[in-house]
Amino acid sequence: MGSDSSRNVTIAMIARLAGVSVPTVSRVINGRSDVAPQTRERVEELLTRHGYRRRLPSRRTSSALIDLVFNDLDSPWAVEIIRGVEDVAHSSGAGTVVSAIHQRTSSAKQWLDNMRGRSTEGVIFVTSMVAPPLQAELRRLNLPVVIVDPAGVAPQEAPTIGATNWAGSLEANQYLLGLGHRRVGFIAGPPQLMCSRARLDGYRAALDAAGVAVDDALIRPGNFYHESGYAAGTQLLALPDPPTAIFASSDQMALGVYEAVRKRGLRVPDDVSVVGFDDLPEVRWCSPPLTTVRQPLVEMGMLAARTVLRLARGEKIESPRIELATELVVRDSTAPPSRTR
Amino acid sequence: MGSDSSRNVTIAMIARLAGVSVPTVSRVINGRSDVAPQTRERVEELLTRHGYRRRLPSRRTSSALIDLVFNDLDSPWAVEIIRGVEDVAHSSGAGTVVSAIHQRTSSAKQWLDNMRGRSTEGVIFVTSMVAPPLQAELRRLNLPVVIVDPAGVAPQEAPTIGATNWAGSLEANQYLLGLGHRRVGFIAGPPQLMCSRARLDGYRAALDAAGVAVDDALIRPGNFYHESGYAAGTQLLALPDPPTAIFASSDQMALGVYEAVRKRGLRVPDDVSVVGFDDLPEVRWCSPPLTTVRQPLVEMGMLAARTVLRLARGEKIESPRIELATELVVRDSTAPPSRTR
Repeated sequence: MGSDSSRNVTIAMIARLAGVSVPTVSRVINGRSDVAPQTRERVEELLTRHGYRRRLPSRRTSSALIDLVFNDLDSPWAVEIIRGVEDVAHSSGAGTVVSAIHQRTSSAKQWLDNMRGRSTEGVIFVTSMVAPPLQAELRRLNLPVVIVDPAGVAPQEAPTIGATNWAGSLEANQYLLGLGHRRVGFIAGPPQLMCSRARLDGYRAALDAAGVAVDDALIRPGNFYHESGYAAGTQLLALPDPPTAIFASSDQMALGVYEAVRKRGLRVPDDVSVVGFDDLPEVRWCSPPLTTVRQPLVEMGMLAARTVLRLARGEKIESPRIELATELVVRDSTAPPSRTR
Repeated sequence: MGSDSSRNVTIAMIARLAGVSVPTVSRVINGRSDVAPQTRERVEELLTRHGYRRRLPSRRTSSALIDLVFNDLDSPWAVEIIRGVEDVAHSSGAGTVVSAIHQRTSSAKQWLDNMRGRSTEGVIFVTSMVAPPLQAELRRLNLPVVIVDPAGVAPQEAPTIGATNWAGSLEANQYLLGLGHRRVGFIAGPPQLMCSRARLDGYRAALDAAGVAVDDALIRPGNFYHESGYAAGTQLLALPDPPTAIFASSDQMALGVYEAVRKRGLRVPDDVSVVGFDDLPEVRWCSPPLTTVRQPLVEMGMLAARTVLRLARGEKIESPRIELATELVVRDSTAPPSRTR
């Protein structure tokens, strides 16, 4: 009965019982100091006796902002991450301020100036590298910072959120091997990024586990962009013993391979299977729809927003780096190797 | 000589000449009241005599915000428009608060609550329709509102920014006719949107001007999404006398046509030319890269931001609706009709 009735205990009731005004009860509940000690004691006692449930003091969140900073807004990723951050921020009553600083010092400085003028809860960077002067300035401002870093470089000062690059590559290459491919081409990302290395290692691990020797001629450099995928794909297809499947370390490079295949008069997946990495929204509309490793970009944005809000409340977080699991999405660009080749 | 030397007049010099400290000169320049009248007079006189150039008092713009509101952040357009708005806002010292209201009343209400708590300069909606209760509330808040409306529906209360849908379609279809195509398929957008009608009318106008009769069998409905392009493309290619070129009213539908062409064992552009509408960033990476009508989404975002900032300053704008010009971008998905068909 107690717990049921407690739901009906109102501030007005307590005020009546205590013989004080409703605002006075509110002041006690909100911990304000302008209440006489005996009154406070009486009201507190009545609140406890009648099981009044204090709502958590609602934080003044209405003007809260989270700053979400990209180097550039030209990445096809950007909107996915924005979507995740916005979703969490919106539900917490916070606005998401999106900025691009173009890796230019002047632009970063202007962003800092603008940002100081608004009372932001914290900053999410989407980048592999926050410039040291910017880091220093943010440290001085003592603002919570979280880095969303799909590329996964070396440890950063701030907590980072990434994806399981090694495991994602391993799974995709195991899938190709499982289809019967034995000559699998690999197009790498920029060598200075840890994610590139992790994806290459996942490829090697898959081949090793299947007892397939790694042929270095099948491993080509790339920079994640379309053109480099096209160039590497063209080279791979021109080999005397070309691959029957190609794993590209990004979706954009995978689409470059599509173009190389088309230009050679061949077809995906009839002549060559192609796998990408990212699962950008548009690759499901490719022709054929692309098999790829999904990076959970929306979820990474959501986690970043939750982490920044927790840090803003002074909470501790579990780990300086969190990797969210990738997922192999099988579509129509992969098939068993053709018998005729 | 006066103008040259004036550039070298520093606050330190004036302080020396006036026999006061540098902070005192600064206080005079900044119009502060805590300076003795005689001192102020002497400093003012020296400032004028030596031609000291006061910098304009910098507007306190640092906390300015522009609210950019989408129905959903799942459109491939979104990041383009964000990029344009952010670019202008950033240079004006304003932050861009990106929100998605999901056409749900609860979500729009929460956005309004959050927005009221920050001092926003104005609101940019990216939508064909702002719900009437939201319009009423914004009117009550007396905030500048601009609508970015690539779909171009009926006149709105607020200034709208769109693109030249009719002229864009006319140009693309004239281009196909110029390549020698006489059977051109047309896949329409949702009939309730004015832009769909404008694109259809542009198609008819191109055919009429070339003396080519409109064949209603070649006009198919669509909804801008991939699947409808795929379905319409499949139907068009199955006609006894199929088109040699297909104009799709959106890039996503054009990619659906690619897939229909591929599934039929045909090739773009060898067997069928395909043209889209939008020029989303990813269509240059299609295989083959897509010929399409570019909507200047970044520029539309920039203009929207400039317009909101002008309205916030109390300026009048020239026109309640501005359409920015589209541009035909010719890539590899179009060619003269094949002789063999």
